Amino acid sequence: MSNIQKKARIAMIGLGGRGFGLLRLNLVHMKNVEIVGICDTYQDRIDQAIKKVEKICGNTPKGSTNYKEFLTDENVDIIMITCAWEGHIDIAIDAMKAGKFVAMEVGGAYSVEDCWRLVDTYEQTKTPLMMLENCCYGEYELMTLRMAREGIFGDIVHCEGGYHHDLRKEIAFGKENRHYRLKNYLERNCENYPTHEIGPIAKVLEINRGNLFTNLTSFSSFAKGLHEYIVKNKADDKDLVNAEFKQGDMVTTVIETIKGQTVVIQLDTTLPRSYSRGYTIRGTKAMYQEDNNLVFEDNSLHGKLYEFNSRPIWNNGKKYAKKYAHRIWKNKGTVVKAGHGGMDSLVLNAMVEAYLEGYYPPIDVYDTATWMVITALSDISIKNNNQKVEFPDFTRGKWQNRQDVCLGHYSLEGAVK
Amino acid sequence: MSNIQKKARIAMIGLGGRGFGLLRLNLVHMKNVEIVGICDTYQDRIDQAIKKVEKICGNTPKGSTNYKEFLTDENVDIIMITCAWEGHIDIAIDAMKAGKFVAMEVGGAYSVEDCWRLVDTYEQTKTPLMMLENCCYGEYELMTLRMAREGIFGDIVHCEGGYHHDLRKEIAFGKENRHYRLKNYLERNCENYPTHEIGPIAKVLEINRGNLFTNLTSFSSFAKGLHEYIVKNKADDKDLVNAEFKQGDMVTTVIETIKGQTVVIQLDTTLPRSYSRGYTIRGTKAMYQEDNNLVFEDNSLHGKLYEFNSRPIWNNGKKYAKKYAHRIWKNKGTVVKAGHGGMDSLVLNAMVEAYLEGYYPPIDVYDTATWMVITALSDISIKNNNQKVEFPDFTRGKWQNRQDVCLGHYSLEGAVK
Repeated sequence: MSNIQKKARIAMIGLGGRGFGLLRLNLVHMKNVEIVGICDTYQDRIDQAIKKVEKICGNTPKGSTNYKEFLTDENVDIIMITCAWEGHIDIAIDAMKAGKFVAMEVGGAYSVEDCWRLVDTYEQTKTPLMMLENCCYGEYELMTLRMAREGIFGDIVHCEGGYHHDLRKEIAFGKENRHYRLKNYLERNCENYPTHEIGPIAKVLEINRGNLFTNLTSFSSFAKGLHEYIVKNKADDKDLVNAEFKQGDMVTTVIETIKGQTVVIQLDTTLPRSYSRGYTIRGTKAMYQEDNNLVFEDNSLHGKLYEFNSRPIWNNGKKYAKKYAHRIWKNKGTVVKAGHGGMDSLVLNAMVEAYLEGYYPPIDVYDTATWMVITALSDISIKNNNQKVEFPDFTRGKWQNRQDVCLGHYSLEGAVK
Repeated sequence: MSNIQKKARIAMIGLGGRGFGLLRLNLVHMKNVEIVGICDTYQDRIDQAIKKVEKICGNTPKGSTNYKEFLTDENVDIIMITCAWEGHIDIAIDAMKAGKFVAMEVGGAYSVEDCWRLVDTYEQTKTPLMMLENCCYGEYELMTLRMAREGIFGDIVHCEGGYHHDLRKEIAFGKENRHYRLKNYLERNCENYPTHEIGPIAKVLEINRGNLFTNLTSFSSFAKGLHEYIVKNKADDKDLVNAEFKQGDMVTTVIETIKGQTVVIQLDTTLPRSYSRGYTIRGTKAMYQEDNNLVFEDNSLHGKLYEFNSRPIWNNGKKYAKKYAHRIWKNKGTVVKAGHGGMDSLVLNAMVEAYLEGYYPPIDVYDTATWMVITALSDISIKNNNQKVEFPDFTRGKWQNRQDVCLGHYSLEGAVK
């Protein structure tokens, strides 16, 4: 705890909606954080962010449109990458080479090669990298992680998740907001945003730590939802009305593990629906299902729910969330609460702790590469008539003996055992 | 309506749990039905069934262990097949050749060839065949069928369903009950029971009537749930304790249509859970999801549910079930209500009507072959490393011009238009 009074000095790369949101809601309020750098390709975003830091924190961060300026800046400890997906890996690699702790927002990879470059650079430099996958820190994700580690689910057989989020408005009006999603929906057809669901699932399944994803197969429906939305809500935009979107409305990906478990994830962002991550854990002793927030333990409710057509008890997950509250969740009162129900605070706190205390990042470069590569692999699978595509083993065999090495207060793996 | 006073004279082949249940709860109470034949391989089942008919209806059906006796019996109008899955197709073919209207309980096929034999025999004999897929007559399945036909969902993009039914007890103690499932779980690994979910989905998607299933790919988890159950609950049964079950706990099958829609179905019968058919319809204008009984119409709830982490309104489907009650469901008061919430009555009523009124069966031989073949195709897919397998076109191209020809009062297709 020697560094507890110290501050992590952060340069933020990318101040769009997500970056500015994290800055405004979380970072400026964190006692162990100092925002020292602000970078974006748009000057107005830089100005706005600097003004926000000045107002709340009192200091004036350096602003620049060139992220490389911060790589050689001695005042910068952490390079936090919150820009468009396309930039993540190149910036992360440059930052690792410069010896700066890397905190990278979520997003999928554009190629398998990019993921290997990320891993190779880490292995050459040993500069820590952490993916800021906030959903690993969700209340129910943490609850199921604890339940899994305590054996409540028995052997875990099958998991599901999805990015079920109606983004039609955000994508269609992306040009106006200088948002990066539109281009992706025009030009690609793949599982473009896998980490919110695969992150928590990979943690539960101990992927890269005694378990591996071995292959995936992706399937895409046609693409109609976004175009129909545009015709109805943005008929003036002739470019978009006449555009052909490549991204299918529903992309379903089936993943197998080396242990013989199956995982189904879905990208589902251009049809009307309510938000869900469709998180589901199925074991030989119990299940959890987000969509009705149901925990079903063998025998516990058996008689009643076994009957045909009886409806499950909805929302009993609330009770379990108390009983199996993860240590990280229980302690969340000590950190800032804002943003996505608390998970943003928790992931940022874990990042800062990892830097200040020198913990191995709870979401490391192997996790990051494994989760991001799904996008690239699903692209290959869909392009090749739903071909089954192998996962690279980014650990190069080390998965067999890697253990949960993260013992920090807020780290994921060490918290229960 | 000339035959309205007439009775359909039925010979039942197979008086296990399902056959005797339909007899006891439904058939003996139907005014337009006369049970004239009872067949099973076990004499005690025959005796029990005859006694039940005598007690409730007053007549004494003929009993035999040889179903062929009923094929040449002039007193038999309908051969109703409720025996083990293995026997369905052979008996159906013999019955069609004998000119007896065939009503066949659900189950998967054991080979693609069997499904072709079914279709070929129908085309040679023109004897009507109807699959008794009761779930096509479920309240919510009928509701979504009406909503789909009225355009509420917009273009339908993706559907899901599953046989999510914990059958561990039934399978493990199957020997004692002379049940046929056990053998299937020991010897096969496939989507062994697809019709409860694919039936309603195929009706919504108008499969074989302007649309086609083109291919499927199946994935299986390992098999642990059933064995773990047996070790815990039936440790004396050394044969089963030492047995190796082939049937994976979770089989996920992805199906594509010629229009570019995707369908995901799951077999999920050997892990603890509450019952669900996981029925989900996703369109460009609305969705329905069984697991939280949610109808989400574009714009209607949009603002509220669009927010991150807001929970959907659960169970608003009840309201829609009234608003969009299907004509068949609205009229169900006129038929016997027992069995699976009314759907058994409705499917049997449709069967009797089709026979007495000479309607084309609402679930015909092409539907039957297409739904049953999924079992055989998924077996091939899993055996061949999750190979993508093409569906046969059982209509031999007629799907392009086939229309909803069923205009009977209780028929499915004609009811809304």
